Amino acid sequence: MGRFEPSGILTLTTDFGLRDPFVGVMKGRILARFPAARIVDLSHEISTYGPAEAGFWLDRSFEYFPGGTVHLAVVDPGVGTARALLCVAARGHLLLAPDNGLLAALIARIPGALIVRLTTAGLARLGIEAVSATFHGRDIFAPVGAALAAGQCAPGDLGEEVGEVVPSTLPAASVRGATVHGTVVTIDHFGNLITNIDQALLQRFRSPLVLVGERSLHLGVTYGAAAAGEYLALVNSFGVLEVARVQASAAAGLGLARGAAVAVREADAAAA
Amino acid sequence: MGRFEPSGILTLTTDFGLRDPFVGVMKGRILARFPAARIVDLSHEISTYGPAEAGFWLDRSFEYFPGGTVHLAVVDPGVGTARALLCVAARGHLLLAPDNGLLAALIARIPGALIVRLTTAGLARLGIEAVSATFHGRDIFAPVGAALAAGQCAPGDLGEEVGEVVPSTLPAASVRGATVHGTVVTIDHFGNLITNIDQALLQRFRSPLVLVGERSLHLGVTYGAAAAGEYLALVNSFGVLEVARVQASAAAGLGLARGAAVAVREADAAAA
Amino acid sequence: MGRFEPSGILTLTTDFGLRDPFVGVMKGRILARFPAARIVDLSHEISTYGPAEAGFWLDRSFEYFPGGTVHLAVVDPGVGTARALLCVAARGHLLLAPDNGLLAALIARIPGALIVRLTTAGLARLGIEAVSATFHGRDIFAPVGAALAAGQCAPGDLGEEVGEVVPSTLPAASVRGATVHGTVVTIDHFGNLITNIDQALLQRFRSPLVLVGERSLHLGVTYGAAAAGEYLALVNSFGVLEVARVQASAAAGLGLARGAAVAVREADAAAA
Repeated sequence: MGRFEPSGILTLTTDFGLRDPFVGVMKGRILARFPAARIVDLSHEISTYGPAEAGFWLDRSFEYFPGGTVHLAVVDPGVGTARALLCVAARGHLLLAPDNGLLAALIARIPGALIVRLTTAGLARLGIEAVSATFHGRDIFAPVGAALAAGQCAPGDLGEEVGEVVPSTLPAASVRGATVHGTVVTIDHFGNLITNIDQALLQRFRSPLVLVGERSLHLGVTYGAAAAGEYLALVNSFGVLEVARVQASAAAGLGLARGAAVAVREADAAAA
Repeated sequence: MGRFEPSGILTLTTDFGLRDPFVGVMKGRILARFPAARIVDLSHEISTYGPAEAGFWLDRSFEYFPGGTVHLAVVDPGVGTARALLCVAARGHLLLAPDNGLLAALIARIPGALIVRLTTAGLARLGIEAVSATFHGRDIFAPVGAALAAGQCAPGDLGEEVGEVVPSTLPAASVRGATVHGTVVTIDHFGNLITNIDQALLQRFRSPLVLVGERSLHLGVTYGAAAAGEYLALVNSFGVLEVARVQASAAAGLGLARGAAVAVREADAAAA
Repeated sequence: MGRFEPSGILTLTTDFGLRDPFVGVMKGRILARFPAARIVDLSHEISTYGPAEAGFWLDRSFEYFPGGTVHLAVVDPGVGTARALLCVAARGHLLLAPDNGLLAALIARIPGALIVRLTTAGLARLGIEAVSATFHGRDIFAPVGAALAAGQCAPGDLGEEVGEVVPSTLPAASVRGATVHGTVVTIDHFGNLITNIDQALLQRFRSPLVLVGERSLHLGVTYGAAAAGEYLALVNSFGVLEVARVQASAAAGLGLARGAAVAVREADAAAA
C-alpha cells in the first residue's frame, strides 16, 4: 500500500465554511507544532453534517497530491459526542477522520489499507488530552496531523489497528439484475449532479442509458458536442457518472438534490 | 508580554470577501517584500463595516498561532478617511489594525500590551507614502506587515507609543446587580450565536440561566446530550457563552442577529 | 519586457468556486511536480463563463506580485472543446490561459509581450497528454504552470510564438467624439461597479461627468467626503473608473449588473 514518507503537506476538508476563523485557527495549531507544514484547503464547504460527501471527495482527490501527504477530514454530525477517530494509511498517504462512515467507501475501495483507531493513550503520547477537547479540529486533528506530517509519529503510535469501521451513511452503488443503482453524492459549483457510480460499473453496458429524475440520457463523452441548455450524462474527470447541463445547472433544471437516485441500464434493453 | 521573535507567519482578517482579487493582491505585496512569508487567512467574511466582530475573533484566535506571528486586520467603515493605524505587541505577537475600536477589547484584556500609533515618518522609513495610498490593505498593511514579519523593523520604528485608543463600537459585557449583560458579537457558519460574555463572568453563578430572545436556557456542557432541534447554552471552545441549536441554526430559529442582547442570572434567583 | 527569473510563486484565477475540491486538487498536481511551489489564490469566484472578467482582474493585479511569478487563469465557457492554450511573457511574469479572449486586453495594453500557443508536441515534452485531459486545470494548467514556475522549461519550449489571439468578448473602452464609452466589467464584494475605463482616458476632461444608469455623477476623489448612501464616481486603487455608494451597494441601488454601459463627458459640455 506504499510506505509513508512525509511530503510535509497536509490537506483540510471540513464543513466549517470560510466565514469564521475556525479553519485559520486549525492552521495556527498545525504550524505551532510543525512550522514547516504546507497546508492546502481541499474543501470547507462540505454540506453540514455530510460525512459521505466529504469521504467521496477525499477518496476521489487524495491521490492527486504527492505521496506522503496527510489528509484531515473534520465533518461530523455527532460533534461533541463520544466518537473514535481513525487514521488510515493507504497508497503512501495518511487520512485522519472521525469513525462516522466518512472513510468507509475509501477503505472498501482500497483493500489492505492500514486502519488505526486512536486511543486516549495514543493521544496522550502526543501531549493531547482528548477529554477536555471541544473543538476537535483544532485540539486533536491539527496536532495529530502535524505530528504525522512532520514524521514525529506513525499511525501505529496513535492507537490500535482495527478491521471494521462505522459504515457510510450513503449506500454504495450496486448492481441489481441488469441495472446499476446509485445516488447523487454531491452537486458541484456548476450545478452538475455527481454520482457515486464508478466508471468501472458502466463497462457492462454496450450503450448505457442513464435514468435521472424523469429523464433518460445516453452516456456521452464531452461538453463540446452539445448545445447550451442540453443535458448530458458523462464519466467526469474524477471517474464517476455525472449529469450535467451545458452552460447551466443540471440540479436546478431537474429539480434534484443530493441523495437523488440515479440508475443506468442498457439503452436497447427493451428491444433486446 | 513576550518578546517578539518572528515566526515568518502572517494572518489576514478582512471584510474583503473572496470574490475579488483584493486578498490575493495583498499577499502579492507581502511576498514582494518578504519572499519567505507564510500567510494564513483567518477570515475575509467579516461583516462589512464590522470592526468589533473582527476584533473579537482576532482576540480569541491569535494565540493559537505560534509566537512571533504578525496579524493584519483590515476592517474599516471609514476607509479612505483620515484614521490612524495601530501596531500592538501582545504576548509575543504583533497585531496591525486601524484605530477604529477593532483592537480595543484585546487591549483591555491584555494589560501591558505595547501600543504604537503609526506616523507618516514611520511609514516613510519603510518607503511607504501613506498619502497616496487608497487601498490601505495592499499599500500600507501588506508592506508594513511584511517588514515586521521579516524582522526588518520593530513596532517602535513605525510611530509613537500611545496609551489610549478609539473605543470599541460594541460595549463590553458587564455585571449589573446579579445579572451579566452581553451581546451577540458574531453568528457562525452553523448559525450559533456567539456572545462577548467570557466564561470568567459566569463563575459567579451556581446554576446560570441564559436569557436570549424569549428563551431561558440552563447552561449546558456539550451537544451530545441534547436532541436535534433543541437549544443549548454553553461555553464554547473559544471560552465565551454561545447559544446553539443541535443540528440546526439558533440564529434562524430564534430570529436573532448580531447585536442581540443576552443576559445571564442565577437560575433559582427568584426562589432564593 | 523583463526577463523571467522564477520566484517560485504561482497565482490561480478560476471560476471553480471553493465549494468543491477542484482548486485543491490543482494545487496537489502543482506540488507533485514542483514541491517548493508557493501558491496564491487570486480569485475562484469569477462569474462562470466570464473570461473577460478574469482577464480584467489578472491584467490589473499581476504586477503586484514579485517578478518571476506564474499566473494561471482557467475560465472557459468552451471547456472540453478544442481550444488552444496561451502562455504570455510580460514584464517578467508568465501568464497561462485559454485562447478565448481572456488575455486579449492585457496583450493590447502591454506591447511586446511574447505570446506562445501551446502545441501537443510542447505538452508531450512535459509528459502531458493533452488529448485525454478532461479537467484542463488539473491535467494541463497545473503541470505546465508548475514546470514554468520551477524553471524546468521556458514558454518557447511549449509551442509556437504567435502574433494574434482570440479577441475579448468585451469591447475595450473607446472614445467617440467628446465622450468616452465603457462597460461595467465586474462588481465587487461591496457592490461597487468597476469599469474598463482606465484613468488615462479621463485625462482629456477638465471636469468629468460620469453617466451610469439614470445618474450623472461628478468624478470625486475619496469615500471620506461623502455621506452614507451617496453615490460616488472615482478612479479606484486599480486605476479604473468605479461607481460606488458610501457604505452601501451601488449595484443594488442602481439596479445595474456586469455589462452595463458607462459614459464620461465634460461636465460643462452643454454650456461650452
